[in-house]
Amino acid sequence: MTCQASNELEQLVLQARPYSSQGKLATYIPALEKANPSHLSVAIFHLDGTCTYAGDYKQRFSLQSISKVLSLAYVLARIGDEEVFQRVGMEPTGDPFNSIAKLETTKPSKPLNPMINAGALVVTSLIPGADLKEQWEDFLDFIRTLTGNPEIAYNKELQESEFSTSYLNRALCFFMKQHGIINGEVEKIMELYTKQCSIEMNCLELAQLGAVFANNGRNPVSGEQIIPVQIARICKTFMVTCGMYNASGEFAMKVGIPAKSGVSGGILGVIPNRCGIGVFSPALDEKGNSLAGWKLLEFMNEKYNFSIF
Amino acid sequence: MTCQASNELEQLVLQARPYSSQGKLATYIPALEKANPSHLSVAIFHLDGTCTYAGDYKQRFSLQSISKVLSLAYVLARIGDEEVFQRVGMEPTGDPFNSIAKLETTKPSKPLNPMINAGALVVTSLIPGADLKEQWEDFLDFIRTLTGNPEIAYNKELQESEFSTSYLNRALCFFMKQHGIINGEVEKIMELYTKQCSIEMNCLELAQLGAVFANNGRNPVSGEQIIPVQIARICKTFMVTCGMYNASGEFAMKVGIPAKSGVSGGILGVIPNRCGIGVFSPALDEKGNSLAGWKLLEFMNEKYNFSIF
Amino acid sequence: MTCQASNELEQLVLQARPYSSQGKLATYIPALEKANPSHLSVAIFHLDGTCTYAGDYKQRFSLQSISKVLSLAYVLARIGDEEVFQRVGMEPTGDPFNSIAKLETTKPSKPLNPMINAGALVVTSLIPGADLKEQWEDFLDFIRTLTGNPEIAYNKELQESEFSTSYLNRALCFFMKQHGIINGEVEKIMELYTKQCSIEMNCLELAQLGAVFANNGRNPVSGEQIIPVQIARICKTFMVTCGMYNASGEFAMKVGIPAKSGVSGGILGVIPNRCGIGVFSPALDEKGNSLAGWKLLEFMNEKYNFSIF
Amino acid sequence: MTCQASNELEQLVLQARPYSSQGKLATYIPALEKANPSHLSVAIFHLDGTCTYAGDYKQRFSLQSISKVLSLAYVLARIGDEEVFQRVGMEPTGDPFNSIAKLETTKPSKPLNPMINAGALVVTSLIPGADLKEQWEDFLDFIRTLTGNPEIAYNKELQESEFSTSYLNRALCFFMKQHGIINGEVEKIMELYTKQCSIEMNCLELAQLGAVFANNGRNPVSGEQIIPVQIARICKTFMVTCGMYNASGEFAMKVGIPAKSGVSGGILGVIPNRCGIGVFSPALDEKGNSLAGWKLLEFMNEKYNFSIF
Repeated sequence: MTCQASNELEQLVLQARPYSSQGKLATYIPALEKANPSHLSVAIFHLDGTCTYAGDYKQRFSLQSISKVLSLAYVLARIGDEEVFQRVGMEPTGDPFNSIAKLETTKPSKPLNPMINAGALVVTSLIPGADLKEQWEDFLDFIRTLTGNPEIAYNKELQESEFSTSYLNRALCFFMKQHGIINGEVEKIMELYTKQCSIEMNCLELAQLGAVFANNGRNPVSGEQIIPVQIARICKTFMVTCGMYNASGEFAMKVGIPAKSGVSGGILGVIPNRCGIGVFSPALDEKGNSLAGWKLLEFMNEKYNFSIF
Repeated sequence: MTCQASNELEQLVLQARPYSSQGKLATYIPALEKANPSHLSVAIFHLDGTCTYAGDYKQRFSLQSISKVLSLAYVLARIGDEEVFQRVGMEPTGDPFNSIAKLETTKPSKPLNPMINAGALVVTSLIPGADLKEQWEDFLDFIRTLTGNPEIAYNKELQESEFSTSYLNRALCFFMKQHGIINGEVEKIMELYTKQCSIEMNCLELAQLGAVFANNGRNPVSGEQIIPVQIARICKTFMVTCGMYNASGEFAMKVGIPAKSGVSGGILGVIPNRCGIGVFSPALDEKGNSLAGWKLLEFMNEKYNFSIF
Repeated sequence: MTCQASNELEQLVLQARPYSSQGKLATYIPALEKANPSHLSVAIFHLDGTCTYAGDYKQRFSLQSISKVLSLAYVLARIGDEEVFQRVGMEPTGDPFNSIAKLETTKPSKPLNPMINAGALVVTSLIPGADLKEQWEDFLDFIRTLTGNPEIAYNKELQESEFSTSYLNRALCFFMKQHGIINGEVEKIMELYTKQCSIEMNCLELAQLGAVFANNGRNPVSGEQIIPVQIARICKTFMVTCGMYNASGEFAMKVGIPAKSGVSGGILGVIPNRCGIGVFSPALDEKGNSLAGWKLLEFMNEKYNFSIF
Repeated sequence: MTCQASNELEQLVLQARPYSSQGKLATYIPALEKANPSHLSVAIFHLDGTCTYAGDYKQRFSLQSISKVLSLAYVLARIGDEEVFQRVGMEPTGDPFNSIAKLETTKPSKPLNPMINAGALVVTSLIPGADLKEQWEDFLDFIRTLTGNPEIAYNKELQESEFSTSYLNRALCFFMKQHGIINGEVEKIMELYTKQCSIEMNCLELAQLGAVFANNGRNPVSGEQIIPVQIARICKTFMVTCGMYNASGEFAMKVGIPAKSGVSGGILGVIPNRCGIGVFSPALDEKGNSLAGWKLLEFMNEKYNFSIF
């Protein structure tokens, strides 16, 4: 893989970066506050195997909620959609990503979709494996295969920080355990979940991973079918209807591509049959999406006409 | 326009029709209970101006919630997106289409999107015009232009039936009037709203109307730009994220096209840059979508690969 | 009836009046904003027929929510508790008095109790009578009998003001009409309801009315049983559990007597087997209770040990 | 203390016992299912130190939610009402005792009152002590003093059963820990909470304990002030407004006394300035209150006119 800096992309980065000053770093995970708020980097991985980038593409960041799409793809592939969708729904929600109220008022109390925390915790609880070690290593292998980088790892310090402060996610887990939606030990699920959130990569690796989804689950370079077509499609659908937290509808209107953001400031973009995109800029808007990252994708859409609508 | 019966479509109709026996006619609007539950018809209007159909394509049905997309397009075009989106949101919701609770718990209390009743009532309240007569006639002209049929009209008996029993919609209106989301007289808004819901057409006209959206707002035959590109895109986005009531997410996964259904059993489908689709089958599933209509669109997607994902 | 000014009460009034400066007049009913915010008056009507007062006891004020207890007593007496409690519950609620959300999330959707607006509207809808005129006149007779004043009337200007702006109450009515909790025409119910809210009296008449409840439904002077014992008890119970809006629990702890307040600034107090109390001071706290009125009742309880706990 | 069997009470027990056949044993705590569903016992402890009983008064049962009143009294006495009511409210709620949704929709997210699980967990988290051992032993001493029985203990098997299955209470704790309402380790709070719920006594001891509250916090035999007057009053108020789960309003109307029930089937009753009552019958109605126990209190009220209203 030979990746090249792109002047054209660099122009768009210059145009979008100023917006980062209107955003704020995530504060609820202490380790995320160390990021450089004016950072902005982007990479595009085309289905012919070429790629371009702008900004400091080497900067690594944690996946956070972006990992929800990946654990979903993995679990769907491993245990099948029927078992997964018995425990988590397919519908978008107007409630915040970390809300617990709907679990109580909806009967049965399964989470509305796998992109909100409750749903993602269910998905993580379904990762197969004889023990925590096997669950984690197999899942990590999957991520390494997707990115083509066997060195992908999680940030231990970050993971420990998240693990020790995730009271709300524990509340969600115990609530769902009470209602039989989640089985297994909550502390183990929390360890696995915080590990998947702490996986680090750069925008280039994120773009390459996105290209697999864009290519209907097939590695664009090797041609290997990593994710079944139908599962790649399911994931892209969730990215459109609920990938950008409570601004998913607005993003669909303004950019119109399957995307998933994380509170680290990363955004995974997927242009079906065209390319994968990785963006990173850690200053967030009030809904939790990367502010300059979102703007950059708007500008890219205006230039390249990415929208699927 | 020359439309032709299609054997291929007819085969799919035969395959889908049996599912109608698992559905039920809408009961909350008395006039809708008179429909023939085993009816199923479909039409496709391609962007080259040709069209095909299957089943009794002449059967007329009321738009009901399908009209929400049309009033939205109309109001956006007439008064601009800024004013509209000050009063109604852009986000999907996990609540039922007729829910009032979220209006109370969300601050400010504007409806989450224009595809739920509360949001559609806001949109209707924004239809410009000196009086009710002008509001209605101008809007009806818009529908006639979209379908190419100057005879399009509403079903008066149906409208009166809906008008006299729509207590819940009045509750929504008064609640929003209290909070300044809606201005004007509730009874007038209700008259306009029930009229738009009672507009009747057949699947062919619905498909032709869909082709305008598929063609980015341009009439595929005359080339006239009826709806601005950006507004057509906004409408298609809402159709994907919230067009099929509380099964929008599932529909996006299984069919993957912008669509809007109504409790009459109609479904408007839009395949960007390809064709518009009109489907009608009045027996509904428990979420309020045409059961055989949904199945037919699934079969059509399998055959023609319509999904945008 | 000979009523006398009381120096002792006057001392307590002097002590409580300064608190009125921390409160605000109700703004959502325009006519209420004309009140004198520093006004404070009180009367006690003992079961031996004597009464005492302090402050300008002649000042008249509208009942507003205080009327909810009276319409409840009236309807229970006229049509029986069974029919009433099929349509409205017996339980306190943590939601605001004008909330609609619980009606949607509770099945069946009957209001939790008759002291919140939804419940009070149900009660009003059950007032018997051949037509609106008879319904109103019979109910007004009941109030006149309770107070011993045949001149009691409603404030027409105030009623018209409330009638024309009560969008939220109309929303509640239409919502309940949809669910079969309320029958009849909403506009007629609204007229009856705003009339009952606009009934005017002074603190002396309010105290005398309270004495009937304190005396287990019997007029303390004439001995006439105006309200059945069991119904008087039901009303006193609701006054303790939900009489002071969302501060009912706090009031029960700090004062400990059955009481019902209205946004006009009136408070009806009932000391079982001892006396009735009428208080008026229009400046309200943020929960809608008369601020100086509440304080005065606290001071009275400290002095006279009124608490039933 | 000499307690005597009462023929009069025995007659009421005979009258109430048949109702137990309409109830069901609590199933969510396995150990409670072993109870004899037709058991019914009662004791009255008068303020002159005499007491009477009927049924098998020696039968011991666990306090469960009855302990919420006792931990509240204890914590109020030890750390003061100001600190307690910063973290838990004073208002009744229409939501179920184990609901979590209101914690999310209310800002700040403190529980509405100390009689629902969330509120009781807050109270338990405030029990002072250097460590869990001291917290527990001091609290248990308080219970022993209240009952006059230094042998009062908790049922270890029951406690362990509750501790291992209380997922919902852990969800409530973690949610409140996230919002800063609860500090300290959740597992320790859970241990303390399940211990207090598993304290066992018989109806006689429960009645004696109730007499302390009836006597304004003073031991009726020794005259010792165990609980300050004002705190005893606060507890009685909560018992009226929220002591009988979601049937508190109905109970107040039909019986009219401060009372607190537990899912073991025990009910603590307090008649101010008159007597304490202990009732036990484990078959519950659908709201979680002892069915025959409730009926017995209704019959007792009819005979002895206990109602405070």
